[in-house]
Amino acid sequence: MNRREFTFSLLAAGGAQAFSTSQSLPKLRVNGQRLNARLDELAQFGKTPEGGTHRVAYTEADLQGREFTMKLMRAAKLDVSIDAAGNLIGRRAGGSANLPPLAIGSHVDSVPQGGSYDGQVGSMGAIEVAQTLIENNITLRHPLEVIIFSNEEGGTYGSHAMAHGLMEKQLGLATNSGKTLREGIKFIGGDPDKLLQPLRKRGELAAYLELHIEQGGILDAEKLNIGVVEGIVGINQWEVTIDGFANHAGTTPMNQRRDALLAAAKYIEAVNRVVTSLPGRQVGTVGRIQAQPGAYNVIPGKVITTLELRDLDAAKIQMLYQKVLAEVVQIEKATGAKFTFKETNTVVPAPTDVRVRGLIDETAKQLGFTTKTMPSGAGHDAQEIAHIAPVGMIFIPSRDGISHSPREFSKPEDITNGANVLLHTLLTLDAR
Amino acid sequence: MNRREFTFSLLAAGGAQAFSTSQSLPKLRVNGQRLNARLDELAQFGKTPEGGTHRVAYTEADLQGREFTMKLMRAAKLDVSIDAAGNLIGRRAGGSANLPPLAIGSHVDSVPQGGSYDGQVGSMGAIEVAQTLIENNITLRHPLEVIIFSNEEGGTYGSHAMAHGLMEKQLGLATNSGKTLREGIKFIGGDPDKLLQPLRKRGELAAYLELHIEQGGILDAEKLNIGVVEGIVGINQWEVTIDGFANHAGTTPMNQRRDALLAAAKYIEAVNRVVTSLPGRQVGTVGRIQAQPGAYNVIPGKVITTLELRDLDAAKIQMLYQKVLAEVVQIEKATGAKFTFKETNTVVPAPTDVRVRGLIDETAKQLGFTTKTMPSGAGHDAQEIAHIAPVGMIFIPSRDGISHSPREFSKPEDITNGANVLLHTLLTLDAR
Repeated sequence: MNRREFTFSLLAAGGAQAFSTSQSLPKLRVNGQRLNARLDELAQFGKTPEGGTHRVAYTEADLQGREFTMKLMRAAKLDVSIDAAGNLIGRRAGGSANLPPLAIGSHVDSVPQGGSYDGQVGSMGAIEVAQTLIENNITLRHPLEVIIFSNEEGGTYGSHAMAHGLMEKQLGLATNSGKTLREGIKFIGGDPDKLLQPLRKRGELAAYLELHIEQGGILDAEKLNIGVVEGIVGINQWEVTIDGFANHAGTTPMNQRRDALLAAAKYIEAVNRVVTSLPGRQVGTVGRIQAQPGAYNVIPGKVITTLELRDLDAAKIQMLYQKVLAEVVQIEKATGAKFTFKETNTVVPAPTDVRVRGLIDETAKQLGFTTKTMPSGAGHDAQEIAHIAPVGMIFIPSRDGISHSPREFSKPEDITNGANVLLHTLLTLDAR
Repeated sequence: MNRREFTFSLLAAGGAQAFSTSQSLPKLRVNGQRLNARLDELAQFGKTPEGGTHRVAYTEADLQGREFTMKLMRAAKLDVSIDAAGNLIGRRAGGSANLPPLAIGSHVDSVPQGGSYDGQVGSMGAIEVAQTLIENNITLRHPLEVIIFSNEEGGTYGSHAMAHGLMEKQLGLATNSGKTLREGIKFIGGDPDKLLQPLRKRGELAAYLELHIEQGGILDAEKLNIGVVEGIVGINQWEVTIDGFANHAGTTPMNQRRDALLAAAKYIEAVNRVVTSLPGRQVGTVGRIQAQPGAYNVIPGKVITTLELRDLDAAKIQMLYQKVLAEVVQIEKATGAKFTFKETNTVVPAPTDVRVRGLIDETAKQLGFTTKTMPSGAGHDAQEIAHIAPVGMIFIPSRDGISHSPREFSKPEDITNGANVLLHTLLTLDAR
């Protein structure tokens, strides 16, 4: 579905004016030392020899990380439960009757051989915000939920189940843990039989805020403190098959070849040329390639490769795709090879709520931070929750833009800054 | 070694004049029907569902093909033996004392999932020539040897052992049969412990002639009968490693990438441009590629690919390689990726004997065939034997130039024509 069709009415009375934070913010701050110490503790579960984290969803390390997280939730006086999708939910009642909860959170699972910041900063940050509130005897008007979504890295399955439900055939899919999704969800305490319907309906959450590392290099390169996410980009992926003709590399003259790998080379260059020839933040990637039969001395007869295009604007993705196809027609003429594109995955763009976005920006500036409005090139649980609630995302810098790697790193002060922006955005949202 | 350094004195008394075939040839012809029927019979051993041949050296199918071949040798009144390298040798004594043998032959092993002509035409053709001689009560002055070399497709190992010997570490190499070379040679009746020295010295063979399918499309496209091989091209192979930087395909802007696969694409195009920018019959191929980590959504950090260059002139191969390296310097500047070339295999060019070559051309024309002098782009046992004896090669057309494929095909009349050129070239060589 295209999330653009939904408009959100956050706290029904309010317009843009309602979110003004023109008054000065309270002096309240999170305990940054505790927050960073907890990130170090969490990193022990699934720690790799390279100093990264291998905590793939539905594995023993994932279970251990979740146990640790629930212990911290309880220390922050949250009532902990596990929903049918295996999402961890830490809840505290609000001061006013009948208001829907405000939710903050992220995920604690990692990619294989990943880092110790992706998802983990937002998870420990959300619990730190909850603990800061209780330690300062602050009760929100809304109920507060800290939500740690299950299996984000495998395909935002926990948040997808919450907002959309899961189909029977999805439950049978294999995951990186070796378990099917069904087995994995049971393994972490969920109930896969209850997932055919969404777990939450639109309106059941007042808003969802997620703190996260940027995973790109823009904030780091431009020496900025906070990224205000304008939306999570759409992702379109295609499997690309190129049929040429395999033949003997010694006996086939150059002008009698239909070399599928030469055609692939022209295609890879064309993708880069098309994507970089237009202004904007779109990206295009060819990440996988296989040439058959794959020998030094045989002209490749077949190549299977990929195309991935990402942008905040689905129409721009389609326009780029059409430009790539136009180039491919020329490549087919030049090489005699034939291209077939099969769409394998589509994630529609998920804009964040325009008013929440403005509030994050104002809050960060009032705390003295520099900000930049930017798309998220990576997928996040927030894109799923955007289907049922207004969402906002707060980015902090990633050193050298490295992510999904043991070399992933964010500075402790940036992590603390991000948690303080989360805290005060939550307080302002609750007050208005 | 460079085979160019050797000059051969074939039949010591003769000069170019000695090979003149200005007299008309005898009316003698091979039995083309029998020859083609035997090719069909041989194709039963290792026959594939696609109608091709899978008779990889040192497998059960190889053993069966060799047994069938030895049976035919005996029918042609040849004394059959197996040398230490597993080569099959069918010998008949000559009429004059003290002359070295004239050898004809090829191989009966195939590539995996190959065709029923490569090697097999020359093997059945050589036995047919021997049988034609005995049936017509013709005894050559020289002894005759029909040699069916072992494991040609795995790397001309049988002929290499005959001309050069094998090193201990070569004997330990794995082969496509699953056996090591040592195990494979034992399996077919050879004695690997006797291969550290060459099995034959220079001068022990008067000459070696090999009939073979072209495996390229030149004779077929130009509708010519016979190819006179001027030499077997040199082959240089490199493994090419391209180091970029793996990163998240969503969060890394286009201008912050060091994409190893984009660099590889530019390299593959450059190889094609360099090789086709000069006149001549040189070929250049990139046949294998692997991108790491190899996911839709990760910018490839590393690519391992290949380079193969072939030409009759080793100096031209080096010149082409230097031109590729010059292009690579520009690609490194443009992409930030780093290239490393590691030479993995070198086969020096092996020219055929200039006088034998002239004799094949004259003989073919006297038989009424059109001819073309051409390089062999593929490797052959003849290139190994060129180290110890004057060699000549006779090509017949391959339909559409297809080889190493179940679709490999040569017409029965072309096969018969080739065997008749072999027969009369042999007779003329023997007479002079």
